[in-house]
Amino acid sequence: MPKLYWEDFSVGQVADYGPRLVTAEEIKAFAAEFDPQPMHLDEEAARSTMIGELCASGWYTCSIMMRILVDGFLRDSSSMGGLGVEEAKWLAPVRPGDLLTVRATVLETRTLNSRPDRGFIRVSFDVLNNAGTKVMSLTTLLMFGRREPAR
Amino acid sequence: MPKLYWEDFSVGQVADYGPRLVTAEEIKAFAAEFDPQPMHLDEEAARSTMIGELCASGWYTCSIMMRILVDGFLRDSSSMGGLGVEEAKWLAPVRPGDLLTVRATVLETRTLNSRPDRGFIRVSFDVLNNAGTKVMSLTTLLMFGRREPAR
Repeated sequence: MPKLYWEDFSVGQVADYGPRLVTAEEIKAFAAEFDPQPMHLDEEAARSTMIGELCASGWYTCSIMMRILVDGFLRDSSSMGGLGVEEAKWLAPVRPGDLLTVRATVLETRTLNSRPDRGFIRVSFDVLNNAGTKVMSLTTLLMFGRREPAR
Repeated sequence: MPKLYWEDFSVGQVADYGPRLVTAEEIKAFAAEFDPQPMHLDEEAARSTMIGELCASGWYTCSIMMRILVDGFLRDSSSMGGLGVEEAKWLAPVRPGDLLTVRATVLETRTLNSRPDRGFIRVSFDVLNNAGTKVMSLTTLLMFGRREPAR
């Protein structure tokens, strides 16, 4: 049984999830499969790029964030998925050795008269490294089943 | 030497990249690592979810799109990376057997007086399956080196 339903979210709620360690091996493995550019593939090749050292693909950061969120609360919830991303910003490089956490802030809760079994939450996720630097921010609309369908 | 510089993009340009075949094995492998939810992990477990069958994580679709774009034009360009995503929408399920292509449309080109060595392009990417269904759309701002720095 899910632990969290739509009713369990309220505007202003803040929760922290993680941490998850980023390794050079994972950065390179993800890049080899999905984003084979020099700054993500190899320390030596990364030296002549803008950042100047090995850093993670932005899509790796998104994917790691998702894993932190699934482990943190989505797996034990009535989540019905996301409809998309309203905005995502890659703010600072993610590097080997970074310990990432995700801070979730509920911005809005919504229902739809035509869909009494579910509700929506707009939430912002800030991904932070262990130095406290925000490396990514993302806002999204998530759909959750309701504990008590509206009548 | 890069083939494509900022000067090579112009508003209204359209280009198609791919295709790339999506397999059940890849959907599950990505999910096991980054998005372990029933609809992405296992055909049997997916039957009781909203979509009713195995479908890819939205982040897998983003990652595959990135690979198509790197192979299609970014690897041989002066790309300096993306700053983020303005908006992404997951519009339809991505399923095993789908052959994905990406249609890129240049929306805007921009320079910055303070950065004469580079320019920006705002571009929308539509990810389509082989039935012609748009499965994802995404708008982003990409940064490219200029062939001729502004003076």
